Amino acid sequence: MKAKFNKMLYGGDYNPEQWPKDVWQQDMELFDKAGINSATINVFSWARIQPAEEVYDFRELDEIVDTLAKAGKQIVLATSTAALPAWMVKRYPEVARVDYEGRRHKFGQRHNACPNSPVYRHFVKELTARLAERYGSHEHVVCWHINNEYGGECYCENCEKAFRVWLRKKYGTIEALNKAWNLTFWGHNIYDWDEVVLPNALSEGIEGEEEPGNEKTAFAGISIDYRRFNSDSILDNFRLERDTIQQYDRDTLVTTNLMGTYKGLDYFKWAKEMDIVSWDNYPSYDTPWSTVAMWHDLMRGLKNAPFMLMEQTPSQQNWQPYNSLKKPGQMRAQSWQTVAHGADTIQFFQLRRSVGGCEKFHGAVIGHAGSDQTRVFREVAQLGEELNRIGDSIIGSKTESKVGIMFDWDNYWALEYTSGPNKDLKYVDQITRYYEYFYSKNMSVDLIPVDADFSRYDLVAAPVLYMVKEGMAKALERYVAEGGTLVTGFMSGIVNESDNVHLGGYPGPLRALAGIWAEEIDALAPEQSNEILFTDGTKACCGLLCDILHLEGAEEIARYGSNFYAGTPAVTKNAFGKGYTYYVGSVLSEDGLAKVLDLACDGAGVASVIGEETELEVTRRISDAGAVYFVMNFKDQELPLPTVFAGKKDLLSGQTMEEGEMLGKYDVRIAVL
Amino acid sequence: MKAKFNKMLYGGDYNPEQWPKDVWQQDMELFDKAGINSATINVFSWARIQPAEEVYDFRELDEIVDTLAKAGKQIVLATSTAALPAWMVKRYPEVARVDYEGRRHKFGQRHNACPNSPVYRHFVKELTARLAERYGSHEHVVCWHINNEYGGECYCENCEKAFRVWLRKKYGTIEALNKAWNLTFWGHNIYDWDEVVLPNALSEGIEGEEEPGNEKTAFAGISIDYRRFNSDSILDNFRLERDTIQQYDRDTLVTTNLMGTYKGLDYFKWAKEMDIVSWDNYPSYDTPWSTVAMWHDLMRGLKNAPFMLMEQTPSQQNWQPYNSLKKPGQMRAQSWQTVAHGADTIQFFQLRRSVGGCEKFHGAVIGHAGSDQTRVFREVAQLGEELNRIGDSIIGSKTESKVGIMFDWDNYWALEYTSGPNKDLKYVDQITRYYEYFYSKNMSVDLIPVDADFSRYDLVAAPVLYMVKEGMAKALERYVAEGGTLVTGFMSGIVNESDNVHLGGYPGPLRALAGIWAEEIDALAPEQSNEILFTDGTKACCGLLCDILHLEGAEEIARYGSNFYAGTPAVTKNAFGKGYTYYVGSVLSEDGLAKVLDLACDGAGVASVIGEETELEVTRRISDAGAVYFVMNFKDQELPLPTVFAGKKDLLSGQTMEEGEMLGKYDVRIAVL
Amino acid sequence: MKAKFNKMLYGGDYNPEQWPKDVWQQDMELFDKAGINSATINVFSWARIQPAEEVYDFRELDEIVDTLAKAGKQIVLATSTAALPAWMVKRYPEVARVDYEGRRHKFGQRHNACPNSPVYRHFVKELTARLAERYGSHEHVVCWHINNEYGGECYCENCEKAFRVWLRKKYGTIEALNKAWNLTFWGHNIYDWDEVVLPNALSEGIEGEEEPGNEKTAFAGISIDYRRFNSDSILDNFRLERDTIQQYDRDTLVTTNLMGTYKGLDYFKWAKEMDIVSWDNYPSYDTPWSTVAMWHDLMRGLKNAPFMLMEQTPSQQNWQPYNSLKKPGQMRAQSWQTVAHGADTIQFFQLRRSVGGCEKFHGAVIGHAGSDQTRVFREVAQLGEELNRIGDSIIGSKTESKVGIMFDWDNYWALEYTSGPNKDLKYVDQITRYYEYFYSKNMSVDLIPVDADFSRYDLVAAPVLYMVKEGMAKALERYVAEGGTLVTGFMSGIVNESDNVHLGGYPGPLRALAGIWAEEIDALAPEQSNEILFTDGTKACCGLLCDILHLEGAEEIARYGSNFYAGTPAVTKNAFGKGYTYYVGSVLSEDGLAKVLDLACDGAGVASVIGEETELEVTRRISDAGAVYFVMNFKDQELPLPTVFAGKKDLLSGQTMEEGEMLGKYDVRIAVL
Repeated sequence: MKAKFNKMLYGGDYNPEQWPKDVWQQDMELFDKAGINSATINVFSWARIQPAEEVYDFRELDEIVDTLAKAGKQIVLATSTAALPAWMVKRYPEVARVDYEGRRHKFGQRHNACPNSPVYRHFVKELTARLAERYGSHEHVVCWHINNEYGGECYCENCEKAFRVWLRKKYGTIEALNKAWNLTFWGHNIYDWDEVVLPNALSEGIEGEEEPGNEKTAFAGISIDYRRFNSDSILDNFRLERDTIQQYDRDTLVTTNLMGTYKGLDYFKWAKEMDIVSWDNYPSYDTPWSTVAMWHDLMRGLKNAPFMLMEQTPSQQNWQPYNSLKKPGQMRAQSWQTVAHGADTIQFFQLRRSVGGCEKFHGAVIGHAGSDQTRVFREVAQLGEELNRIGDSIIGSKTESKVGIMFDWDNYWALEYTSGPNKDLKYVDQITRYYEYFYSKNMSVDLIPVDADFSRYDLVAAPVLYMVKEGMAKALERYVAEGGTLVTGFMSGIVNESDNVHLGGYPGPLRALAGIWAEEIDALAPEQSNEILFTDGTKACCGLLCDILHLEGAEEIARYGSNFYAGTPAVTKNAFGKGYTYYVGSVLSEDGLAKVLDLACDGAGVASVIGEETELEVTRRISDAGAVYFVMNFKDQELPLPTVFAGKKDLLSGQTMEEGEMLGKYDVRIAVL
Repeated sequence: MKAKFNKMLYGGDYNPEQWPKDVWQQDMELFDKAGINSATINVFSWARIQPAEEVYDFRELDEIVDTLAKAGKQIVLATSTAALPAWMVKRYPEVARVDYEGRRHKFGQRHNACPNSPVYRHFVKELTARLAERYGSHEHVVCWHINNEYGGECYCENCEKAFRVWLRKKYGTIEALNKAWNLTFWGHNIYDWDEVVLPNALSEGIEGEEEPGNEKTAFAGISIDYRRFNSDSILDNFRLERDTIQQYDRDTLVTTNLMGTYKGLDYFKWAKEMDIVSWDNYPSYDTPWSTVAMWHDLMRGLKNAPFMLMEQTPSQQNWQPYNSLKKPGQMRAQSWQTVAHGADTIQFFQLRRSVGGCEKFHGAVIGHAGSDQTRVFREVAQLGEELNRIGDSIIGSKTESKVGIMFDWDNYWALEYTSGPNKDLKYVDQITRYYEYFYSKNMSVDLIPVDADFSRYDLVAAPVLYMVKEGMAKALERYVAEGGTLVTGFMSGIVNESDNVHLGGYPGPLRALAGIWAEEIDALAPEQSNEILFTDGTKACCGLLCDILHLEGAEEIARYGSNFYAGTPAVTKNAFGKGYTYYVGSVLSEDGLAKVLDLACDGAGVASVIGEETELEVTRRISDAGAVYFVMNFKDQELPLPTVFAGKKDLLSGQTMEEGEMLGKYDVRIAVL
Repeated sequence: MKAKFNKMLYGGDYNPEQWPKDVWQQDMELFDKAGINSATINVFSWARIQPAEEVYDFRELDEIVDTLAKAGKQIVLATSTAALPAWMVKRYPEVARVDYEGRRHKFGQRHNACPNSPVYRHFVKELTARLAERYGSHEHVVCWHINNEYGGECYCENCEKAFRVWLRKKYGTIEALNKAWNLTFWGHNIYDWDEVVLPNALSEGIEGEEEPGNEKTAFAGISIDYRRFNSDSILDNFRLERDTIQQYDRDTLVTTNLMGTYKGLDYFKWAKEMDIVSWDNYPSYDTPWSTVAMWHDLMRGLKNAPFMLMEQTPSQQNWQPYNSLKKPGQMRAQSWQTVAHGADTIQFFQLRRSVGGCEKFHGAVIGHAGSDQTRVFREVAQLGEELNRIGDSIIGSKTESKVGIMFDWDNYWALEYTSGPNKDLKYVDQITRYYEYFYSKNMSVDLIPVDADFSRYDLVAAPVLYMVKEGMAKALERYVAEGGTLVTGFMSGIVNESDNVHLGGYPGPLRALAGIWAEEIDALAPEQSNEILFTDGTKACCGLLCDILHLEGAEEIARYGSNFYAGTPAVTKNAFGKGYTYYVGSVLSEDGLAKVLDLACDGAGVASVIGEETELEVTRRISDAGAVYFVMNFKDQELPLPTVFAGKKDLLSGQTMEEGEMLGKYDVRIAVL
């Protein structure tokens, strides 16, 4: 059992190697002023600590570690393998990636290594071993941060060969592969493993309007397997570093920083290999706060455990189109929201703003002015004081939810690869629509994998559960039969794990559970919509896709108002064993979906964490000492404190809260009930 | 003389090789229920029937043919050469194409063979010979379907060499080539055939906003010749297969499925090599019905003969952005419209929906439910009953039109390659604007090539006849002099077959015929427009391009209302011999163009096929038994039956039609008058 | 000292080699009719005068020169090196460029030579020597026109090697390079010059939505140096030709035609190497006339001297999306505007319209009709008469301005490479906003380099002076201290010449001068804005970026009206020595910026060239004979002549101008006061 953090880390990325040493001492003083108690180092230093193939030089890193240790800071130690040294690419061009267009890249940027390059893996192992041997037992090193924001794809020959090996291991025989990928379609039958090619722009990739990383394919089955393979290949890089570290250091937590709903990697699979999840939170100026909350809940859901907030900006970003400043109080409110949803650390990118390079306009605790006399620094210091004061009473506390929303990378990939019926159907959009409902009601939600223990939840939502893999339908049937409430709907139950259709009628293996048959799926263009008529006479809108349903035991909750299927069911409810399945046949307007979920929640007995309506966000963590409630105002107007908190102590201010007390935008209260 | 079809084929693409054999028998039963009397097979089976270079295996195909034959189905037998087997690309990479960007492709997708690869041609010939030998005399095989949806481009070294040979054959000398391409411009003079390079992104291609397949070029002359060459190269592939088949089978019709106004291939040239034209009709959810009608008339016009509708979807597509369902009755109405415009077959893609691959959401007669209890199946069966009942009285019947609209791939290419004056000028758009007028009037139209026998028509429309090749002007002069009516206009008569300007003043060789000189061509941006004032005082709008005209014998029909050329002629009419030429100097609004065409039609004595106004589509085919009228409602409201049909028998229902009878949307009546 | 022009050249690009010789004589007659007194020849004839590696053939060029000489025309002789001959690319593929995507190009288009190809340079030198030897002393050759519209980039191996040499020369040591590029960021440290790679799509280029030539980069420092290197490499090509010519001809002016605000080349550096600046003026149909005026002022500013207008169209262009005709009088007014801003020649592209190639729809003096009976020809002839009549009294005259606006290619590159804060911030846009103010007031403006002699100006505007290089701040401080007025603002003083931030607080080295500290920079999305409240109570809007300012000696001119920094200064004025610095903290609306500049101009005593308000453009050149005023109406309504001109003689008409006389759109008056 590795040691947990002994306090709430407050720090972030720190790159003293970019600065002269007189600055280091200023930094230590400023960190103290700001309550910064830790620093993440060595994130991009490979070329400095290994300046040539045969030369390792840890003198500078030693000094950095010493400086931080002397200042009493805890250290998150990165392995610096996320950016290739120039000399390595020059000497071994194969370490660089081949892109989707088939072009071998040269030295440049970062996150640029081929995951299946034996040369890269050789150097990674060697470096990691030396780092772990040298710093693994350092008492200030409290966490290993492997690589950085793993991601991307490579389409080189080494990857192609590795893909064939991966496939052989998965499928065993050529025949099984042909069947899984339905290769008889378009006469793609293969007779030799070497006939497999990577699915990029030069093979199965279909030219279109898709953004990079979201390309179309002629064979979703191949491309989904490529994504699995690529995620596994990169995960194997992570494991290589982790295992190497653990040869020298069995006590320190190992993580790598994830990126929310990043499409490229199957984070549920990754999380199993990580001691603790950490992630980087970068909302845009117009990202809804509910979306940010969902990201946190997903990151917490990966291991169903508290996580590290490895990066956020104290002020603004640089790589968005419009990098607005965080307003006064916003960073603090955002940080407390992060803690509320399960974070045990608050860390910034970055502690000191770079002088050059493409991130020089990225916000930092210490700006280019080098001063503590800035709004940003003062806000960081205020939060530092608060976290240092009350953080210890929060870390390690759990989240208890009665609602689970399924999130699944296989589904993410498969749904977005599929050709038709409607190009505007995006996976995360649909998940977000559900999450928003629960968020607005302050119902605690877990984002859960498809193999979760559903019995922990009173209600499980599975929107666009397009791919239903072996065993999933049975598990859901057991869950509902034993009294659970399942909400699913259009584009669910369509394909198996190889993206081949479950024959016999949609929603395939979910048909009995839902008590309906979806005979056809209509696609609506953006300018088109339909009307939804609930049985109580209320109306709502819908669009994008419209299932044409036949009741097979289910009852109708709402019907379509127009088109040739006017009057046929649009939303249904099916009793199955002791539970119920709701099936939502179209993309409903917000009020329409809310109505369905109101019904489902009422039936399942799911309620707000405070049993009181409010437009404030109220989020709960459960510690040994009791339930900690975080009350936050993310709305543009003042809002009254829920009555349940009247007379309780606000941990932040130490004051007793009053009945009718108003919270302004970004105000936060924390109370233990 | 090859045998014509003995009945109206009703069937479509069928891929039993993707299914276990127990499904085949279900299929035969379902086909019977649906009135399906034929199937198109072996479209993408190359890799199955030739699993390795030295191995041919026809056992499965034999079984498929037997199964269909036993079930009494006619067979359209494809040659399966439209998708390369994986082993071939692996062993002979040259069979794959090099794309516009200069990138050699790997194995993947379909329609992927270099047309000038000797290796590909070798294997094609070998395979086709074996197929023809084996199945050519099978009594159920009624049509050869060569390859599939030929198209695309290749820019490989083999193509480059073949292009030089093609050019040498066409031009004879380097001097002639330099002159044709005007290579002195920008000092492009060449002195050796080997200095010719293919015009792609690495040579003459100009980077811009154009979509793939519609790229810009520095030398339209080179790029037009490349398109001609590429069309010829692929046509040579077709001829290779056709000739090989005919060595074994001189009796069966040979076709390949075309794609309407597809830009890449000169279909008029292709049709000369085909026994019968067949094509695939895939309107989008928002394609006007007039456009669909025009596509059919173009496909009929290729050989001025009935055609096969090789593919359409019974329900929805998968590759459009928004794949809406066909509404009840829509597929039936669309099918009858197809027959009305000259189809002698109605075939679907596809008979059974695939379980995987990128077309798994493409509609099919038998859906994933595998059931006949679907709306789609019932509609297919209804149509099957009708076609089987009355189809025989229609097949082979002709279309007689008094209006011809010129369509010409050379013009299509040249107009869209040219740089300036207005990037929004698109060839098919302009043709469509004319067609819509005649369609709305139920005037029968032929789409005709530039070397048509114009004397068959009372009115010939030649919009944007940008390229006037050798002899064309004389032919048009003869036509008008002998009493014909020609309607042409802006951007006509500009260049010769090499895209070099006809000097001396626009519209070049059409100047005498039109009796005007276009001194200048103004280009209007999308937010700009001009006004058109007709001599009778009515007004209309115009935009995009405005010719500034001088009358040279013509009379003014309308003048511009604004800009510095306000008051100068915008539309003119010129008496030439016994006939008249109308010249439309700008892109007129729909009502403006209608006014001009009203005048021209009145003068030419062109009228509706029923001599009665109606918003219904009424289309006529002439059989030995008489004129068959197809009356169809594609409007959103009910419309009364034209009086001419009152008291006549509707072939579909067998009922006598009544005066004032209303047709709902998608209702169809068929009567022989 | 080379000879200046002895008259105002009136002519343009002339390509008789594209035409049979009978046309040449027609051309000479038409030139006479139009007052054309010169022609630019041999622009794209390399493949004709050097048809093979060992063969030079000047017979045709001799004839062209003779023909023009006999007709009494002056000759601008181009060197024809701007388009590679086909044979050269075939034999030496390295002469063609490798593009941003890393693709080696083939023969095609123009402006296509690798500037660092020894082969290309060898052939260029050889050709230029022969041309100079042969024609250098020809009395009709009055100007050498080297190459054509130099531009573009190459990323080949030769360029990569040359870049390393360039860097070694600039930086001396690897350590200096690492520091300048801040390579410790993302661990990019290099230890060997050979580790440097060119910054393209395969290395530091960041994929995004940027248009070609405007790509994003991970290391602005590298990419800015690449741009400097590329500009220098191409300039070295220019110098090679110039020096070669001068070995044979020391008397004739040497130029190359520039392209206004073209981003790729540092024209201030280029102009130092040119005897006279020439440029090509191609406004779009919707380009404001103020922008055209600014382009001229920039071109004049390059050498602070009169320039040649090498190309403009007499009627329309072909390569714009919408190539509208110039309206009657527009070309004449545009030409006089050009002269007003410093042109000593008026030349067209082109004298005769090509028969083929991508510019066949580009306007010409002689159109495809080959006639002088066209509107365009008549307008050209009218202008020819005027220029021949009064041009001599104008050429060589100077421009005197009290306002200088800084324009700097280093800033242009750096500002647009930088990642954040707002992607919509574009360099030329911001300069243009300032220029428009002075233009609307008829205040004469010089566009000046950052190392200009500021003391010549009463007011210097330096918008977005993002990069403040060594010495610049001191120079500006001297200027203001001695009484100058400086207007600068947001995104100024941020980085040094290597794109590394000036630490210590924005605007870095300008902080004392401006008397403010910009603590933060907010970025506003397009749908967002702020309000500006001036101290006199008036209001305006602002957006895009908002500096949050602290006064450090400056006084507040205006403050923000909303957001969390409402009430803080948005515009300030700082007394510094005898002068003042205005700092504009946000992108103000037009009226807001005008208000600030009104204040600054009033203070600095800057006034209109006529001391009278008018919506007409009034622009002044100073000749030995006095001040020549050009009065032009570019507005859509009639406007009265300013009173100062009443009673003066209009040089164009020879008439005395009257009080209250109205000028219609495109009317021009020229008077000497």
